[in-house]
Amino acid sequence: MMKQQDLGFRVLVPEAGRVKILDQTRLPGDVVYNEYDDYRDIITAIKRLEIRGAPAIGVAAGYALAVAANAGVDNIMVGQLQAILHSLSVEIKNARPTASNLAWAVDRMLEKADLYDGDDIAQFRKYLWDEAAAIYREDEQMCALIGRHGAALLHDGDAVLTHCNAGALATGGIGTALAPIYTADCKGKKIKVFADETRPLLQGARLTAWELSRAGIDVTLLVDGASGELMRRGLIDCVIVGADRIAKNGDVANKIGTYNVAVQANRHGIPFYVAAPYSTFDDAIETGADIPIEMRSPDEVTHIGDMPIAPDGVNVFAPAFDITPHELVTGYITEKGVKNNTAPE
Amino acid sequence: MMKQQDLGFRVLVPEAGRVKILDQTRLPGDVVYNEYDDYRDIITAIKRLEIRGAPAIGVAAGYALAVAANAGVDNIMVGQLQAILHSLSVEIKNARPTASNLAWAVDRMLEKADLYDGDDIAQFRKYLWDEAAAIYREDEQMCALIGRHGAALLHDGDAVLTHCNAGALATGGIGTALAPIYTADCKGKKIKVFADETRPLLQGARLTAWELSRAGIDVTLLVDGASGELMRRGLIDCVIVGADRIAKNGDVANKIGTYNVAVQANRHGIPFYVAAPYSTFDDAIETGADIPIEMRSPDEVTHIGDMPIAPDGVNVFAPAFDITPHELVTGYITEKGVKNNTAPE
Repeated sequence: MMKQQDLGFRVLVPEAGRVKILDQTRLPGDVVYNEYDDYRDIITAIKRLEIRGAPAIGVAAGYALAVAANAGVDNIMVGQLQAILHSLSVEIKNARPTASNLAWAVDRMLEKADLYDGDDIAQFRKYLWDEAAAIYREDEQMCALIGRHGAALLHDGDAVLTHCNAGALATGGIGTALAPIYTADCKGKKIKVFADETRPLLQGARLTAWELSRAGIDVTLLVDGASGELMRRGLIDCVIVGADRIAKNGDVANKIGTYNVAVQANRHGIPFYVAAPYSTFDDAIETGADIPIEMRSPDEVTHIGDMPIAPDGVNVFAPAFDITPHELVTGYITEKGVKNNTAPE
Repeated sequence: MMKQQDLGFRVLVPEAGRVKILDQTRLPGDVVYNEYDDYRDIITAIKRLEIRGAPAIGVAAGYALAVAANAGVDNIMVGQLQAILHSLSVEIKNARPTASNLAWAVDRMLEKADLYDGDDIAQFRKYLWDEAAAIYREDEQMCALIGRHGAALLHDGDAVLTHCNAGALATGGIGTALAPIYTADCKGKKIKVFADETRPLLQGARLTAWELSRAGIDVTLLVDGASGELMRRGLIDCVIVGADRIAKNGDVANKIGTYNVAVQANRHGIPFYVAAPYSTFDDAIETGADIPIEMRSPDEVTHIGDMPIAPDGVNVFAPAFDITPHELVTGYITEKGVKNNTAPE
């Protein structure tokens, strides 16, 4: 296994029959790990966004099944436990219906469970626990590879703008969009990061600024509206963002606000990279126009925490994601290497 | 005087020797007027942003001097009072050094005071009070004219995107950027407004959404990052924003985030108008590159109210304004008419 940079935290820490989850809803104020030995509490943690980011949710879902298998009485038959895991899998998949890694991880765990044809319940439980650990480890390796390929694009002294959090807090490893930065830093390149705060949920302010500053990386926060002025001043060398889904033609769905950054980068002749694992490319979807965009609750815009910041009952336009057309993307940083966009513009 | 649309509130209400100021720091939660009969309290109100927006600050500054002149003993000589007004004018001008209307209004009041050559103290006081009222009235008329010229650009059913608050709350009348919308509405055209929330100080959420919804105008709030997605969906016909300063070549300094909206409007072929009085054009400044940009306190980004939303001590890039290059501006809506931009692109 590839050497993993130690950032001093993990989104999830497995222990015997239980997991500890870093509660991201309490960042950046408090660094608290919640301990769960009941799979239903892990579902609640996913719903509450204690753990978020598609890859990290996949990891949590794998352990939700492993924890469920490890709980309960010892005199159960393997076949009974297999049936139980199938019956509760729907509940886990529904925790956050749009996170594709969640369903993928649950299905992978079930397939693995069904393949077991022994009758040793303790061995079966360990076998499932190891599968959850494998999902975690593979995600970590994917991040490391994205980091290695992406770091080659960065030069000592570069300033990188990112949007939202596609960092270690969103994955089982060192992140997707932030992986090249961590890896470049490891190789002795000084990288300065500018982080969009990313309204409405402020993942840039709460999470990206937190994990980068903890890792000793120079990070500067800005409101989302300031990205153009930042580029006009010549302060940005490169943009790297993550992706929630990428259509066959290369159009990218990512956190709302990404498209504004892309169009400004294009105007200023600044390279705009999307860092994401190959699993994010959805060849069943031709273009960005076909990607369904989740609409979020108006409360996320009209309130910060419990505090109202707008008149009661005002209409809100609150898409969770936007679509960045492929012609604005310089290249895609994946675990297999950097795929440059050859489309015109 | 032109018929003024009644929006049910005024930024400032003059009464005998005193003024009531609508406390905008408490909007949208509470509609509270604070009563001031001491010019020093009016300075504090300007500093605290109880009243904000360059034209409205000019109105408040005029009344600060009028209130100062009306206070105090009756057995004072006109010459003494003239000298006192000069001595306290610096204090008023320093309330917010970047608001050009503030210094302009103070200077106008002083010039008018110096022109008075009678010796009737009561008459002198009324004469100054009337001058403050004249500044207010002229601002109101300027807004009405911008409204009339701008409304001619709007069609029934149009959807207009705006940024920050250049509305009635920022002026002595019906606003600059919002004036065309109020006027079009008065003429029976149904206009739908989309309001950027405008981080960091949320003037769009707190003020624009409040005044438009109060006036019965259909308003929808969005985070600043969502403007591109809104335009991609074909939901916007026209953008109208205000301006803090306009260079000789037409480059516009306005609230941070304006440039991102302009570059998206350009990409989507949507007209982008700047509504501002002629006094905003600063012919002493050749291009936007020469406009000094005030940097704000990091706290405005890292905290909302008193609530921290970012790690302690994080670096912050917090310019108050950005520069929109003239080639992205379709036209300027002024009290003298619409001046179309003939520059290429």
